Amino acid sequence: MPSRSVPAPLRVRRLPERAAYDEATIAPILDEALVCHVAVVREGRPVVIPTLHARDGDRLLLHGSKAAGVFRDLRRDDTVCVTVTLIDGLVLARSAFHHSVNYRSVVVHGRAEEITDPVEKTAALRVVVEHVARGRWDDVRPPTAAELRETGVWAVPLTEASAKVRTGGPKDDAEDLALPVWAGVLPLRLASGEPLADGGDAALPAYVAGWSRQPAASPA
Amino acid sequence: MPSRSVPAPLRVRRLPERAAYDEATIAPILDEALVCHVAVVREGRPVVIPTLHARDGDRLLLHGSKAAGVFRDLRRDDTVCVTVTLIDGLVLARSAFHHSVNYRSVVVHGRAEEITDPVEKTAALRVVVEHVARGRWDDVRPPTAAELRETGVWAVPLTEASAKVRTGGPKDDAEDLALPVWAGVLPLRLASGEPLADGGDAALPAYVAGWSRQPAASPA
Repeated sequence: MPSRSVPAPLRVRRLPERAAYDEATIAPILDEALVCHVAVVREGRPVVIPTLHARDGDRLLLHGSKAAGVFRDLRRDDTVCVTVTLIDGLVLARSAFHHSVNYRSVVVHGRAEEITDPVEKTAALRVVVEHVARGRWDDVRPPTAAELRETGVWAVPLTEASAKVRTGGPKDDAEDLALPVWAGVLPLRLASGEPLADGGDAALPAYVAGWSRQPAASPA
Repeated sequence: MPSRSVPAPLRVRRLPERAAYDEATIAPILDEALVCHVAVVREGRPVVIPTLHARDGDRLLLHGSKAAGVFRDLRRDDTVCVTVTLIDGLVLARSAFHHSVNYRSVVVHGRAEEITDPVEKTAALRVVVEHVARGRWDDVRPPTAAELRETGVWAVPLTEASAKVRTGGPKDDAEDLALPVWAGVLPLRLASGEPLADGGDAALPAYVAGWSRQPAASPA
């Protein structure tokens, strides 16, 4: 990724000590998060919806139907805000006030440019499918020309991006430490269950049996 | 919740058969989701950040520091969009095109009104803490007057809310069904790990040991 200069209005204002602007922090969060939330301004009002994303080097790909509302907005080439959030745990303090959540989030601001060239679009869809399940693309039937036309992929440069991370235990006030109440962290993670086959007798791929939302290796 | 009339610009436009506007669908999704994404318009641009929420009957409470950027925007009483998303599984089809995700999401549009009365604010914070871990509030030290002043709680009416849900297996084209590729669903859920105590010898509460992101019983 290029070094980035985040304009002041977009910098993290609250608890700046939790903020980071470096690729080493931002990229793994984008890679681990399965979905993102995309916000646009529609008729002066904010609209935010979930969708699939994937990091492709120094840009963020957004995937969606070209008929979806938020992506119709994207075609106007407006600025978007894309946020991903990983929830790592509940922080249970001795006072209500110091309760918190351990999390890693990334906020990206930028213009979303639609990818229209069929070859480039197919390559981008590969990155998105591989983001969901690494190894899947080579197993499945690739998109036809008609399917490509129905699918939308947009790219947002990762030049205006910031991460915010909270880790560790509760930060209780000293005078609360003797209270007779359990305090600590309950770790949370996105876990997979037993795969449910949709008929057929094809073998379960290793990338499904062993699927885990670990940070993917950087494709860059 | 009151019956709601969702204005046309806010109705689900893409795949309306996946949309629902009834409390029976919307409330459990809001209750199960641990965090939400709040979008506002700041200087004409969209901004979306994660924060804690909790449903309180027919309104959605948003919790945050009064110093946080997005909540400074809320003080201007602008319209917000709040979206929660539960990821239920990966849908792995035989073609790249039909890959999907099983999810339940809710989008709420409305004006966020700050709760300032200390008694009402304390009651709202109780709902938020109980949303995170049901049973926690009665164990912990309640907020002091100073802590209450530092904390922000906003309420958004659930009158303009819609849900979107995808369930089930892949919808492959008939001609793809014979392809020698495993297809199906990989279920996903937010799972808890081993609680990490922050010192002290207080017993681990049952609501931590047995924490699960099941839909909470409605407080309404």
